[in-house]
Amino acid sequence: MIRNTKLPLLMVNVLFLMFFTIFPFSTEAQTRQAGPWWPNTEWGSDDQAGASNRITPQKVLEAMSLATTGKIYELGQVYEESMPLFGSRSYSMILPAKGPAFADNRLVGNQEFLATQIGQVGTQFDGLGHIGGEVVMENGATEFVFYNGFTAKEMDTSAGLQKLGMEHVKPIITRGILIDIASFKNIARLPNSYEVTVEDVLGALKRQGISEVDIAPGDALFFRYGWSSLWLQPEAYNANPPGIGLEVARWVAEKKVTMIGSDSWCSEVIPNPNPGLAFPVHQELMMKNGIFNLENMQFDELVQDNITEFMFIVTTIPFKGATGSPVRPIAIR
Amino acid sequence: MIRNTKLPLLMVNVLFLMFFTIFPFSTEAQTRQAGPWWPNTEWGSDDQAGASNRITPQKVLEAMSLATTGKIYELGQVYEESMPLFGSRSYSMILPAKGPAFADNRLVGNQEFLATQIGQVGTQFDGLGHIGGEVVMENGATEFVFYNGFTAKEMDTSAGLQKLGMEHVKPIITRGILIDIASFKNIARLPNSYEVTVEDVLGALKRQGISEVDIAPGDALFFRYGWSSLWLQPEAYNANPPGIGLEVARWVAEKKVTMIGSDSWCSEVIPNPNPGLAFPVHQELMMKNGIFNLENMQFDELVQDNITEFMFIVTTIPFKGATGSPVRPIAIR
Amino acid sequence: MIRNTKLPLLMVNVLFLMFFTIFPFSTEAQTRQAGPWWPNTEWGSDDQAGASNRITPQKVLEAMSLATTGKIYELGQVYEESMPLFGSRSYSMILPAKGPAFADNRLVGNQEFLATQIGQVGTQFDGLGHIGGEVVMENGATEFVFYNGFTAKEMDTSAGLQKLGMEHVKPIITRGILIDIASFKNIARLPNSYEVTVEDVLGALKRQGISEVDIAPGDALFFRYGWSSLWLQPEAYNANPPGIGLEVARWVAEKKVTMIGSDSWCSEVIPNPNPGLAFPVHQELMMKNGIFNLENMQFDELVQDNITEFMFIVTTIPFKGATGSPVRPIAIR
Amino acid sequence: MIRNTKLPLLMVNVLFLMFFTIFPFSTEAQTRQAGPWWPNTEWGSDDQAGASNRITPQKVLEAMSLATTGKIYELGQVYEESMPLFGSRSYSMILPAKGPAFADNRLVGNQEFLATQIGQVGTQFDGLGHIGGEVVMENGATEFVFYNGFTAKEMDTSAGLQKLGMEHVKPIITRGILIDIASFKNIARLPNSYEVTVEDVLGALKRQGISEVDIAPGDALFFRYGWSSLWLQPEAYNANPPGIGLEVARWVAEKKVTMIGSDSWCSEVIPNPNPGLAFPVHQELMMKNGIFNLENMQFDELVQDNITEFMFIVTTIPFKGATGSPVRPIAIR
Repeated sequence: MIRNTKLPLLMVNVLFLMFFTIFPFSTEAQTRQAGPWWPNTEWGSDDQAGASNRITPQKVLEAMSLATTGKIYELGQVYEESMPLFGSRSYSMILPAKGPAFADNRLVGNQEFLATQIGQVGTQFDGLGHIGGEVVMENGATEFVFYNGFTAKEMDTSAGLQKLGMEHVKPIITRGILIDIASFKNIARLPNSYEVTVEDVLGALKRQGISEVDIAPGDALFFRYGWSSLWLQPEAYNANPPGIGLEVARWVAEKKVTMIGSDSWCSEVIPNPNPGLAFPVHQELMMKNGIFNLENMQFDELVQDNITEFMFIVTTIPFKGATGSPVRPIAIR
Repeated sequence: MIRNTKLPLLMVNVLFLMFFTIFPFSTEAQTRQAGPWWPNTEWGSDDQAGASNRITPQKVLEAMSLATTGKIYELGQVYEESMPLFGSRSYSMILPAKGPAFADNRLVGNQEFLATQIGQVGTQFDGLGHIGGEVVMENGATEFVFYNGFTAKEMDTSAGLQKLGMEHVKPIITRGILIDIASFKNIARLPNSYEVTVEDVLGALKRQGISEVDIAPGDALFFRYGWSSLWLQPEAYNANPPGIGLEVARWVAEKKVTMIGSDSWCSEVIPNPNPGLAFPVHQELMMKNGIFNLENMQFDELVQDNITEFMFIVTTIPFKGATGSPVRPIAIR
Repeated sequence: MIRNTKLPLLMVNVLFLMFFTIFPFSTEAQTRQAGPWWPNTEWGSDDQAGASNRITPQKVLEAMSLATTGKIYELGQVYEESMPLFGSRSYSMILPAKGPAFADNRLVGNQEFLATQIGQVGTQFDGLGHIGGEVVMENGATEFVFYNGFTAKEMDTSAGLQKLGMEHVKPIITRGILIDIASFKNIARLPNSYEVTVEDVLGALKRQGISEVDIAPGDALFFRYGWSSLWLQPEAYNANPPGIGLEVARWVAEKKVTMIGSDSWCSEVIPNPNPGLAFPVHQELMMKNGIFNLENMQFDELVQDNITEFMFIVTTIPFKGATGSPVRPIAIR
Repeated sequence: MIRNTKLPLLMVNVLFLMFFTIFPFSTEAQTRQAGPWWPNTEWGSDDQAGASNRITPQKVLEAMSLATTGKIYELGQVYEESMPLFGSRSYSMILPAKGPAFADNRLVGNQEFLATQIGQVGTQFDGLGHIGGEVVMENGATEFVFYNGFTAKEMDTSAGLQKLGMEHVKPIITRGILIDIASFKNIARLPNSYEVTVEDVLGALKRQGISEVDIAPGDALFFRYGWSSLWLQPEAYNANPPGIGLEVARWVAEKKVTMIGSDSWCSEVIPNPNPGLAFPVHQELMMKNGIFNLENMQFDELVQDNITEFMFIVTTIPFKGATGSPVRPIAIR
């Protein structure tokens, strides 16, 4: 840790030189360099809100203009023990035993205890502390770096992150666009490991009568793969899902949206067609662009009513220092 | 348990007779009778959504008409270890150790584990399974009864309630009215154990230029006691707060609102001036009228901008079988 | 709840009469009557330690006389995420992220968070609050009754039992006898749902050179079914195991032992050959006789060294109000 | 991370040279060097059991020879919500609601959910993964190093340690010696922050009629400060306790004992008289010598019977990858 170690000046120079010799700037297989070289995000080097900064009052009003009937659509799932839990995650909600009633009004009360991971448990909003990358620093050591150059060393405590926690994410009320890939492909559910292409996305938009140029900064884009039909079949649901890859991720980033979402457990194609990459879409969107990702959604009611553009609302729970949040996303039309 | 015990018919009749002789209908100190005698709620004997049924599309549109600038106001608190926890409640959010980075893109990921009560932990939405009362049944035995006559015997499992769980509460988007009692009283914070009267409520509304008759079914009413200024002083915050009593609770119920909320940990005055009653406002609103209660709010930004009428949004997390939910309530104006 | 309900005297008498008429004393399918009629255990009506009372200093010395080489044998399993968890149980142990080192001695520390059920999670010691039965009381109502007549009404709090908690179980150091049914049957593992008979038990003892009359009050008896060979195959392990039934349970109770144990998840045969009974051995031993039960053991090292009689040690963790404990049982020979 | 970075050979040599120039071997304020220079422990470079290796069959027999009456003494505390919890630790044990009784035998069952830290929660056995130190590696980077040179990088996973977990600690049955400092000092409780000296230790031993040379490898030494009398006064208990410092720690290490223990929350004096050191006794014993530490004990019954030498038993729970364990230590005399 360079802060604790006083290297002679000569040595630092040698290391510095070596660094630039050995480690070229961000290729596909290496993340961006941290420190002074980390490009400022558009919201400044202290920013922790990422693309939720795009939710301006003007954007809220624009979103509301899409809600003309007042009908609310649920876009999330119910949280229950039988939902698909990934890996060794657990979800235990315990209803404690009640003591006797008390007072003249014979009061009885219930309250529960919840013990669970947040990430990948139910409808799941990924915050900016969720995914980062290891980068090589000037001294040859490596660091774990997240959005806006914050490092694990300055973020981590046993009780949560000191930077990029969920308390920094702003309420998201924006224009939502459902990009219904499954319907465009005319199938109920995309096959396992299918990578959705930009061509698919543009085709789906066209089918829905939405022009690419209509996608505006701050919008929320939702990809429907038809995957949520497997929700209560955990094994099938957790198996390699279809999803977007780096091509669509970069298209999304260029659109300067606030967030994406999907009806699978990770939004991106698993495994990535490039076998050397693990969750590169997560890195591209969250770490590099501050764009959020909402997983385990469902769009059944929207599809039934043929709605693809709507007022979208998601209010993440501000758990201080958390990397994600359970949420109840809704659409209004 | 009468269902498991076959009493001779004569005996049942004797018990039945005794029941009506000995136990008159709901007095102050006894809750309503369960079973066939439980008055249907206005939404039918199977209803589990309570007053969230009042959120109609028309109500949503009406609420949106109040949002003219698009500015969002936070009405909740951040969830953190230093928040006031009542009694023996605990809130532990643990950030696990990271393993090494992996794949060519050197991915690193964080996710946390959460172990906590839901009830009384941070900004807290009380569901209908939270508070009930003990009633005497026809056979002389007692039952724990909740909203719409559901009993603990039919609701309780170790993993949550089979009835009245949070999955039944609808998203709430409605007209919100802040009733600023502290400002009406011209003090920063009401004193401990002060019972807010209907006269106080009407005075506060008048001061704000809102007429009592303007309060419409489905609205959400928020009482500001100035108590949230004690938020990070747990001992003072948890001490006996001011709040509404049964007088205001009944006035609220007559207005057929969807929910109330406040900037204290229980919304109601503690202790109740009637020393024999424990949390009677909770019983009156939730158990008898299906009206929800949102605690540990704060109205700082609203007061600063002098806003007392607004579009209000709260989307509870649908934890199946839970009695409450962490939430992030917001106002839009 | 009879305490809260004043029935006219006549009525009580009528009920009392009916009670004795309708409900005969403890048949197979009904548990013993609670209250004044509950037979005192041999340790008095206040006793909460059950058969651990049999561990006298004399018994400890007797046990130690069996340990002549000082070799320790492990009789439990390691607790890990991949162990067989029954039903919806979860076991999460989280190692939190470390902050930076501090002080001149550059201290770093780890500590973990544990979220888990105790019951049926790993090697599991069943306490006396674990299993009870519903009995019909004098007024026709029913109560949940546990060892020594303690009722759920007087025991239950949301934070544990007020009676019969693990803090009352004494350290158990006694003579242990392994009854190796699988070896007696000359098979590696008893088949699913095989009920071990008294004849099997006596045969196994005889094969081991132990006489039935040698079994003394306070001893600990361990049944080996060969089931632990399935330990890391959760599905097979959790499937209907062989075990003792009511015949052996009553034989065990007559021997006045302190506890039994086995290498399956419940020690008793599943399902019980009488299809109307659920876990009757648990009820017979714990509820009626205060005899403890230790599950998910393994006897591999004992078998390897051909040891069937030994000094046995198990020290349950005194979690106040708990119904069980994780333990590390050992034998010394 | 040197494993991921191929430095040119010249560079490595330069760094190597610098390393030895700049960083002398273990001074007070710097921990030992890791890697090839880490001195092997006496049990080999793969050892993870530390000083529990000293519990040989011979040692067990020697311990048993001290138990002549068979009387058992409890040396731990009951685990309950009101116990002193340090910092932001929490201990929640929840008794779930019961469903209805079932089957003809009307079975009812209880089991609880436990959510808690292990470290510093009740009577607490510190494992070897609990405390380490940051050391400077050959490349100038730093590593977190634990007993026997294992590093955080090779140990850490989100679900526990891959090395030095509690599953490696052997059952401890050995000679226990109570060193009653408080009685030697003729006071009920040592004052806050008093550092116990070797002179104190020798004086206490002499008072008890035990010669220093009688302390044998593998013994367990327990220091009584009189601090457990504050147990249910969390604020006073958690305040700076008396305890041993580095002088006694080194004396302890030379004796080659298996473990120490005490009736305070950390066994060592807080703060250390050297203001630059944080928990140096923990580092000295655990990290450097593999000697375990048992905290939050009580010796009331031993003192009452004037027992200072005894058979000692502690069987840690083998939670895989854990850094500590709740335990129920006992003495037999």
